[in-house]
Formats: sequence, structure tokens, C-alpha cells
Amino acid sequence: MDTRIEHHARILVQWCTEVKKGDMVVISASPDAHDLAVAVTREVAKAGAASVVLMASEEITRALYDGADDETLKLYPRHQEAVIQACDVYLMLNAPVNTRALAAVDPKRVVTMSRTTQKISDIRLSKRWCLTVHPCRALAQQANMSLEEYQDFVYGATLIDWKVESKNLYAMKEHLEKHNDVRFVGPETDLIASTAGRIWVASDGKHNMPSGEVFTAPVDNSVEGKVYFDIPFLQQGKVIEGVRLKLSKGEVVDYSAEKGQETLKSIIETDPGSRRIGEMAIGTNRGIKQYTLNMLFDEKIGQTIHCALGNAYKECNGTNHSAVHVDMVKSMVQGEVIAGNEKVYSKGRYFYEQKSSS
Amino acid sequence: MDTRIEHHARILVQWCTEVKKGDMVVISASPDAHDLAVAVTREVAKAGAASVVLMASEEITRALYDGADDETLKLYPRHQEAVIQACDVYLMLNAPVNTRALAAVDPKRVVTMSRTTQKISDIRLSKRWCLTVHPCRALAQQANMSLEEYQDFVYGATLIDWKVESKNLYAMKEHLEKHNDVRFVGPETDLIASTAGRIWVASDGKHNMPSGEVFTAPVDNSVEGKVYFDIPFLQQGKVIEGVRLKLSKGEVVDYSAEKGQETLKSIIETDPGSRRIGEMAIGTNRGIKQYTLNMLFDEKIGQTIHCALGNAYKECNGTNHSAVHVDMVKSMVQGEVIAGNEKVYSKGRYFYEQKSSS
Repeated sequence: MDTRIEHHARILVQWCTEVKKGDMVVISASPDAHDLAVAVTREVAKAGAASVVLMASEEITRALYDGADDETLKLYPRHQEAVIQACDVYLMLNAPVNTRALAAVDPKRVVTMSRTTQKISDIRLSKRWCLTVHPCRALAQQANMSLEEYQDFVYGATLIDWKVESKNLYAMKEHLEKHNDVRFVGPETDLIASTAGRIWVASDGKHNMPSGEVFTAPVDNSVEGKVYFDIPFLQQGKVIEGVRLKLSKGEVVDYSAEKGQETLKSIIETDPGSRRIGEMAIGTNRGIKQYTLNMLFDEKIGQTIHCALGNAYKECNGTNHSAVHVDMVKSMVQGEVIAGNEKVYSKGRYFYEQKSSS
Repeated sequence: MDTRIEHHARILVQWCTEVKKGDMVVISASPDAHDLAVAVTREVAKAGAASVVLMASEEITRALYDGADDETLKLYPRHQEAVIQACDVYLMLNAPVNTRALAAVDPKRVVTMSRTTQKISDIRLSKRWCLTVHPCRALAQQANMSLEEYQDFVYGATLIDWKVESKNLYAMKEHLEKHNDVRFVGPETDLIASTAGRIWVASDGKHNMPSGEVFTAPVDNSVEGKVYFDIPFLQQGKVIEGVRLKLSKGEVVDYSAEKGQETLKSIIETDPGSRRIGEMAIGTNRGIKQYTLNMLFDEKIGQTIHCALGNAYKECNGTNHSAVHVDMVKSMVQGEVIAGNEKVYSKGRYFYEQKSSS
């Protein structure tokens, strides 16, 4: 086996989810992530824990949409709840067989399904969980790379010293939490939000691998201004690009997309919570140098910010509820992040980098 | 998608497990059975039921053995129990990635693992469950065929009119249940057992697809005589061939194998129940014309009998308990099956065939 797969598995089991003796571990894997599932199973067993592997793929999900009528889409999968409820650790190994397999599914039906399984998602988030990617051809293709280039891309961003990364991220968190607001300024963008009473989470690989972001949940009704997300992203199998949002008292009052306007509309109109921003965040991973239409990586790109429409995370003290959580990323090469009266990031340099080079 | 895969999925969902509205269905699939998992997911959804897909492979199992110490092998996977306990239907779609991946694992460790998960197996058997094969390269190779030949072999035995098959099998069952014993006579073989109070099960595809056998559990201490199993089989990744057993008062008192003697020994010495025969059966599927080292098919070959060492099935009123259940098959082209004073099968013809041709 490629030793990088084994290294990846060790990071997932030892660093990300800290699997310990007696743990019940659920591994959700695409068929194309089988090699990583094998390596993770071995590491989990070495840690003295027990694993169950679930199979997930876009084609299985598509078949569900194709076979189910609207009533069946609302049928709650109690057996899925049971396995998630009984686990201590949930590891999701993503390796799409075809990233566009869901392109033709009606967005409304996707929302219906999200609502049906929302309780299970909530239970999953209450566990030690981590999401990662196993390099596969579909993601390489989407990233405009050969498989081998894409493997280098993924492992370059993943197989790093997370202890050092973690130290930088916690310095950033501490800095942001000295203030009660955050402001993103850049081309076509000036967005400000209150973060009073909220927590900034240093995402150092405990939930996403790779990681490299600091995020919070803004106070629900406090977000004001406009923002332009220039980095394209996939949602429901479709590319959405050039999203502009205008917010007043925390709600989206105007929006447009250069591509994928209808999908954006269906996201925003899901429920009252999907009209609000549930997450504001700063990407810091300098190992990720380009977008690849995969949010796990794109939202961590160094010198970017991102916001998510919809559900807020409890660990931020977030209060916004929604069936959706859709991230959108903006390059900040020419931008600034300001907390209170301090620049946390300015045109290419983070606070902690400025500090260490001064 | 190959329409034969869709036909196979319909048989599994509609005939084998009779999935109905509101059912919770667990689909356990090898990565190489992904296409069938997709087709089954769609059929399950069409029936108004909900599915969860588990991933299973010999390489995942091997990684578990390689990573786990003896204590970890005994760790009960409560989360695995949870998903099985919560389901109504369990479908296992077998498509090995490598049938020999477990060849080097110590048989004693396999037994330890069987003991650890025996309760989960029992729960599974209490559900509507069915085991099938999706044609894959590893099984084709093992069967000494090309993939396309093997696909023809599998679908030839599977995509038939199970209503007609079922009628024949129930005629056989009725005939056998008129008597209190069964006797297998043939080359190097004369085995007799009491079947008093036991049930003969007509296996018409409700648990195995393909199927085509009638089986019972002999009275524990009644099996007497000798039997020679001439058809090779795989156990723990190894070929066992030419097994001879001698039984007295239901217990194996002498045994040998032309190949795989040590593995046979570890099976027989698992526990007290593994020294007894838990199943005696007659294969009837004339669509299966050769052995392929896959018990799902081999035990159904027309003009064969088989016996299993170990655990007996409850639905036969079986009382033998063991952590193992290992089937062994014998060609009966020159043999006879006698129940009471009647020949149920004799040198190429079943009771119901004799009847219809008389």
C-alpha cells in the first residue's frame, strides 16, 4: 500500500479523532476510498477499537432520489440513526465516483431529504467526527489534474505537522476573541457582524482533514453589508459562481449569482435560517494554493475568507438553525480582516505571520 | 446499467426479501458490488422503504485481523449490533476483491472473531435476510472463467422463474417430512440421521439467491455412518478437498482431508457443537452445472447433497449450537437419498421429476 495512505490513516485515527481503546468507530467510505478504509480499519484496530464501514456514493444517493416518491423521501431511516447513535467516532472518507451524478436532481427534493435526515446529522456532530478526501479520478478531473497530480495536491495539504499548524490557529483564535465584531473588506465587499458571546473555533484537523481555518457563528441579526464570493463552488452537482449577497439585520435582502442563480435561490429559500449567515471564517492553509471545486479544500485556502448560508455550529455558540449549510469562498489577496480596531489579516499576511516576521 | 443487474435487484427486493413500505433495509456490499447496491437502493426506494449500505471486503477484514491484538478481537461492536437490530431486512451483496486475502490469517483468530460477533449473526438471522453474489473478477478467476462467462453463469442460475422453482421445492419438502429419517448413500458414503420433529426447509430464494436446496437439522446425537465430500471448498481463504468424516452418536469420531487437514481440524475443534452435523441438505438447482469454489452456488448444484459442521438453523427446529457453520458438498450422480422406505432421489432424478415423467 502507498505509504501516504497509511500516513493519512494514522493522522485520521490518532490526531483527528483520537481513537482510544474500546471506541466504537463508524467509517463512511466511497467505493473509491476502499484503500483508505482498509488502512483506517487497521489503525482503528491497532488502537483497540471496533469499526463498522458504511458505503456512500453519489450513485447510491442518486438511485435513492430516482426510486423514492415524495413520501418515501420523508421516511426516517431509524437504522441509520441507530448506528450513528451507538458510535463514539465518525470518519467520512470522501472519494466521489462522479461528482455530477446528482446534477439533474430537483433541488427541492434535496432539501426534503436534508430535512428528513437532519436529526441524524445533529447526532453525528455530537460525536468525535472527521471528514477527509481520498484522492480519486473524479476529484482529480474536477480539479483539472491528473490522478497523480491530485494525489500530490491532497497529501501536500494533509500530511503535515498538525501540532505546529494547531499552535498558529490557536494564536489566531485568541486574537479574534479579544474583540466583539469582525469585518471582511475587499473588492465589492464590506461585511460586518457582531461576534459578541460567540466562540472562534481553531479548526486544526479535528473535524476536517486537511483543515486550516478559524470560524465563528455571527450574532443572527447583526450581519450587515455586502459580499462578493469570487471562487466557484459545487452545490447539488452544479457549479455556482460569482455570488453577490446584500445583508441587512442579518438577513439576505438581495442576491445574485453569475452562474447557478436558481440553485442559489432554492438554498436561500429553504427555511428562515437559510436566509442568514451561520458561519464566518478565515482560511489559513498555505499548502492549498488553488481551488479544486471541493469545499473541504477550497474553504481552507490561505488568504481567503468564507461564509456559509444556513445552520450555525453549536461549538461557536451559534443559534441559527437551518436544514442547509452552504459555504462560499472569497479570495482576500487584496482584502483585509478587521476585528475591533485591529487588522487580523491584511493583504497576504496573517496576524501571527506579521508578528513572527517583525 | 446492464438490465440483468436491474432484474437481479428486483428479484432481491420483491421476491427474496419482500420489501414493503416503511421497511428499514440494510444492504451490505463489497466495493465491487457497487453497481448492484445502486440498483437495489433504487428498488428499495421504489418499494417505499429506507436503506443503509454497509461496506464489506476481505481486505477490510484482513486489516482488522492485522491491526487487532487478541483482546481487541474480542471487543463487541455494539454499533454493528445497533444497525442490524434496527433493521427489518438484511441484504448481503457479495463480490470479493480477493478471495484469498484471508489465507494467511490464523484459523484460531477467525474462530475468536466468529465468537465475538455470534450474537450479531443471530440477530441477523432473525430478520428477513438474503445473501447473493454480484459477478466480479475475483469470483470469475476462482471459477476458472472470464468475467463475461461468469456473469452468464451467475445470471443463468439467478434470473429464473422462482415461483416455479418454489413449487418443486415445496413438493420435495412435503415428501421428506412424511418420514422420520434421511439417508445419503453413494461412493464411500452411507450416512443416516433421525429427522424426527425436525422441519425440512424449501430454500426457494428467500435467504440465498440463487437458491435451490432442501435442508434440515438432524437430531443432534442421531447421525451415524461415513461420508465423503468430493467437491472442494474454500474456508478461511484456503481450499479444503476430499473430506472424509466418520460419525457415531452424532459426533465426528474420525476425519481426514486430502487437502487442508489443519483448517478442517481447527473447524472441528472450535467447540462441542462443531463436532456435530448441524445441517443435512439436498441441492436441486440444475442451472448450476459445475462447482466454482463458492458455497452459495456449490451447495445448490443439482444432483448433490451437502452437510454442514456446526450451528443448526432454528427454522429447522435445530438444536445444535456452534460458532461455526461449514458446508461440505458431495456429488450424488451415482448416489441415492432415502427417507424412510422411499427413494427421494436416485441416480439423477428427483422424486418430483420421476413423478412428472411417469
